[in-house]
Amino acid sequence: MGVDGSVLIEIDHIAIAVNDIDAAVAYYNTTFGCEVTHRERIDSDGVEEVLIQVADSYVQLVMPTRADSPVAKFLEKRGEGIHHVGYRVADCAAALKQVKDQGYQVIDEVPRPGSRGTTVAFVHPKTAFGTLIELVQEEPSASSSR
Amino acid sequence: MGVDGSVLIEIDHIAIAVNDIDAAVAYYNTTFGCEVTHRERIDSDGVEEVLIQVADSYVQLVMPTRADSPVAKFLEKRGEGIHHVGYRVADCAAALKQVKDQGYQVIDEVPRPGSRGTTVAFVHPKTAFGTLIELVQEEPSASSSR
Repeated sequence: MGVDGSVLIEIDHIAIAVNDIDAAVAYYNTTFGCEVTHRERIDSDGVEEVLIQVADSYVQLVMPTRADSPVAKFLEKRGEGIHHVGYRVADCAAALKQVKDQGYQVIDEVPRPGSRGTTVAFVHPKTAFGTLIELVQEEPSASSSR
Repeated sequence: MGVDGSVLIEIDHIAIAVNDIDAAVAYYNTTFGCEVTHRERIDSDGVEEVLIQVADSYVQLVMPTRADSPVAKFLEKRGEGIHHVGYRVADCAAALKQVKDQGYQVIDEVPRPGSRGTTVAFVHPKTAFGTLIELVQEEPSASSSR
């Protein structure tokens, strides 16, 4: 559990959409001395991602791998920049239910597999003050349909 | 020092520009059980800010207090959403120098006072892959002009 009973345990990651992931990695390395912690291609989301660890959080650089991926559309519309914030939660399904129970919009109706073996769900920016929020549970979901 | 010798010690905060800070506070409270840790009006930046602690980081909600503040212009142009990311560093002046030495653009040529008694400097998004980056040192600067 987070501070004062909050369900947000940690800023899991801040995701930055980029056109050239290797150039972005070089920027963070030469400027701030950051090293790549993890690199993964997620074909279901149409992205390649790099994680740079900062304390118990990550900077997540994401680059589209196909023109119809949501990140490609984001880049086309808004250009490179911060794409979303991921919060670590103990139970993704429970946190998602809490958002829905309050009447707020979600993108994922049920949790789904994320990168690094996580379980994730996205909350819609429309009713979240313009912020695309990802709820990240570090373990795989016990059931994909719960 | 951060992971693997990085100068980024921690994600200090993720800043979210909003039109109605009380409504945003209510969203984070009812949805995720978050409580307000700190609230401050920073007249030099033309904003009111609320900090919500998440582990050793913060969600920073910022609302403009005047029409010519940079956050007001951001809201007018892009609407509500993630405005910048702040990274905690041991030495703001040294981190800023490293950015400038690499030939990248900065907004603040020298560190300046931030909220909570911090010392801060902003790195320009133009040469930082569209990301407005704030370098945050938790102590006041020893000299305002160093």
